[in-house]
Amino acid sequence: MPRKEPREMTTTPSANVGVVGLAVMGANLARNLASREGNRVAVFNRSPERTRALVEAHPEAGFVPAEDVAEFAASLSRPRTAIIMVQAGQATDAVIQDLASVFEPGDIIIDGGNAQYTDTIRREHDMRQRGLHFVGAGISGGEEGALNGPSIMPGGSAESYETVGPIFESIAARAEDGEPCVTHVGTDGAGHFVKMVHNGIEYADMQLIAESYDLLRRVADLSPEEIADVFAKWNEGELESYLIEITAEVLRHVDERTGRPFVDIVLDQAGQKGTGNWTVQAALGLGTPISGIAEAVFARGLSSHPEQRLAGARLEGPSAKIDLEDRDAFVEDVRQALYASKIVAYSQGFDVIRAAARQYGWKIDSGAVAKIWRAGCIIRARFLGRISEAYGADADLVSLITAPFFADATGRAQASWRRVVATAATSGVPAPGFASSLAYYDGLRASRLPAALIQAQRDFFGAHTYRRVDGPGVFHTEWSGDRSETRMGD
Amino acid sequence: MPRKEPREMTTTPSANVGVVGLAVMGANLARNLASREGNRVAVFNRSPERTRALVEAHPEAGFVPAEDVAEFAASLSRPRTAIIMVQAGQATDAVIQDLASVFEPGDIIIDGGNAQYTDTIRREHDMRQRGLHFVGAGISGGEEGALNGPSIMPGGSAESYETVGPIFESIAARAEDGEPCVTHVGTDGAGHFVKMVHNGIEYADMQLIAESYDLLRRVADLSPEEIADVFAKWNEGELESYLIEITAEVLRHVDERTGRPFVDIVLDQAGQKGTGNWTVQAALGLGTPISGIAEAVFARGLSSHPEQRLAGARLEGPSAKIDLEDRDAFVEDVRQALYASKIVAYSQGFDVIRAAARQYGWKIDSGAVAKIWRAGCIIRARFLGRISEAYGADADLVSLITAPFFADATGRAQASWRRVVATAATSGVPAPGFASSLAYYDGLRASRLPAALIQAQRDFFGAHTYRRVDGPGVFHTEWSGDRSETRMGD
Repeated sequence: MPRKEPREMTTTPSANVGVVGLAVMGANLARNLASREGNRVAVFNRSPERTRALVEAHPEAGFVPAEDVAEFAASLSRPRTAIIMVQAGQATDAVIQDLASVFEPGDIIIDGGNAQYTDTIRREHDMRQRGLHFVGAGISGGEEGALNGPSIMPGGSAESYETVGPIFESIAARAEDGEPCVTHVGTDGAGHFVKMVHNGIEYADMQLIAESYDLLRRVADLSPEEIADVFAKWNEGELESYLIEITAEVLRHVDERTGRPFVDIVLDQAGQKGTGNWTVQAALGLGTPISGIAEAVFARGLSSHPEQRLAGARLEGPSAKIDLEDRDAFVEDVRQALYASKIVAYSQGFDVIRAAARQYGWKIDSGAVAKIWRAGCIIRARFLGRISEAYGADADLVSLITAPFFADATGRAQASWRRVVATAATSGVPAPGFASSLAYYDGLRASRLPAALIQAQRDFFGAHTYRRVDGPGVFHTEWSGDRSETRMGD
Repeated sequence: MPRKEPREMTTTPSANVGVVGLAVMGANLARNLASREGNRVAVFNRSPERTRALVEAHPEAGFVPAEDVAEFAASLSRPRTAIIMVQAGQATDAVIQDLASVFEPGDIIIDGGNAQYTDTIRREHDMRQRGLHFVGAGISGGEEGALNGPSIMPGGSAESYETVGPIFESIAARAEDGEPCVTHVGTDGAGHFVKMVHNGIEYADMQLIAESYDLLRRVADLSPEEIADVFAKWNEGELESYLIEITAEVLRHVDERTGRPFVDIVLDQAGQKGTGNWTVQAALGLGTPISGIAEAVFARGLSSHPEQRLAGARLEGPSAKIDLEDRDAFVEDVRQALYASKIVAYSQGFDVIRAAARQYGWKIDSGAVAKIWRAGCIIRARFLGRISEAYGADADLVSLITAPFFADATGRAQASWRRVVATAATSGVPAPGFASSLAYYDGLRASRLPAALIQAQRDFFGAHTYRRVDGPGVFHTEWSGDRSETRMGD
């Protein structure tokens, strides 16, 4: 048993912000906070050993440690502001209850974990009843971002943001123009919702990169090293982004044990932690088509069913390799397909955010969201500046893809995009993200969709009625009778 | 105010089954029950006018009417068996509580509505605590099926099925071989889960038919009437099904008001009532890729956003019509694409059922489920006999598509399928269902998936670790350090 140290009570409040939960993310965020002018940081962890270890390892931080929640509260100046960095779910609820028992009206509890936005809505409501502010803040950037500057997506009341904003601005990543990557996203669950969609978009981004790699590898017969060069070059243009950058790094890496390309020794089963699922589930509930992100989630799912893939190996298909007349042209086609599909994925992601804002009464500035994703987070990209501009020019943009800049970009890309989807289909290389995004694009621009046939079928078997193209009203045809039409309503 | 009739109390139990909720579905089910040898049917509705109207309109049925729930209970022989046919949600809960207050241990409450299976699990648990049986029974076939023979998917205890089974068998649709379309699907929520997936598959079936129509119309330039002939012909072969049959009917129908093809005057916005959403949401929670059904749900969603489609009309793309060398060959290609994509949709649907069975401990016989879908329900099709045979031959089949019959069928179809997906992409006609299903097929048969790259990226930015192809263990590479590899666990 470790010797119990005598407790030093902090009798006068000396910290302006506290962190509860000192695993890697919490510890890094605390160190980030402590390193910024004007902050003094209280730290508290359920097991005091971890608190002591952090304080000892980082004397430069000037942490104010607490061994229980009362001491932690006493160490914070008013309004008390505490960031919870513990596991989502029950652990978070337990810490919230602990803090609420010692905090006082006007104090602020921030959940910096990956909570379900519905939990955040519930918690904000509960805390508001007790006079406390509750801020669900999405924090993206992983361990490294927490330490050096994440992208931060706080929800909660406007009043709480007056206190929370400056603290977050002090630690957030800065975009090229120097702006801190944080904004008050909206009330209650808005911050966690937007963080969830960020992760959903990340799934799509990664899937589209993976499909690009697969086509270059299997159809164009390029080596991982050659593909690394392709991605490095792409990273100098409109695709410039963190994920493209690290793709080149990964593809260039050689496994030290076997001397083979690293990507070839990694088991091809992609894991997931749930935020992709959540995004698609939320989109379904909101009636928003989000096929690009869904296909990315499904592709990971498919990869993780080895027993099905073993049985599937017997299925017939062509070999992928084809005689390309012009390999460079194919590489450029793939780049265009990636760019256009990425535009679709972001467009769908912002659609979900707008739908949720309507549903929950959040006033979300889509342009501001795009801006705070420009640095600090996993999907950071040059591209996001363009999205911010598009929503800046038209806050009511109904679909990002139809903004002049993106309509032009997809218009220029579409011939390439079509060739890539056709080639993938013909050569037997799965490209669900590319294919689905293109189908969405063609659906969006179709002057007539076969949904008319579906609605007619629904009226046939279920009397679900239909509307007509040539006037108002809701109608039903007597399919099992004389096929006359009856007006059922307006 | 209608005059209040004197109440006639039924003092001796004379009915073997009762129906609560006498809107069209409930009334038709009650009439169906009453028409079968051996049944005497008690009927009860919250507003007694409806009960009286039904009894008066159908003296031949010999209904035993009740004006309150106590009278209803008194009219039923033991074990009391009541089928609730009211709106899903709170209305269902209210009726359940009413019945539970007058029923006694061993009695059986059946919910024949479209309940969420999670609600059914909860209700079954609650009723079991009170000694009652609760049976969530999916009933498919719409109003016409309810009257003349639906496909019935009951869950609940094996003991309750001893009573419920014969009643349902008396009213269910009969397959060609005379077997009634009902089986004890599994305990608690199993019946409603399977009914939900039935509806999800129905979405996919309809979307694939719609894509076929759209390609024949826009690429091959066939008229609705010509396409009706195509579908009628397809209905004589392996695609034979109710939905193909009614598609031909719908396409042949001419709008009386304008003289134009009916399908052209229907507004191209497809509605939905939620079970498609539910299926995809459940599949996501179970980690089962279900892209075909998801794309069908999303396609309806896209069609129902007129403001986005209006803006999308400015997006660039080719005109659909192309010079087909051989129109008949293209029609046959589309037929093959439809057939193969349909196999994928059913394969994914049965995957979801199997995953749920594992998750919830249901012993679901997939072959039996396919059998009871052969008649009575919307997706009834010749095809389902083949599915039943496949699961009959191998109950542990990991993926329907890999069963010999279906692997052969997709193998024969795949060249056509690839041509159709490529043509759709090239000609700018959205075919998300075809494209997604083909990508799934190619993903399933791939010996290596680019999921390896995704997993490597995840290790790079989030230290999510990876497994190797050449041995056990979980590893992490120090991406920001010397890129050495550390074994993190087993």
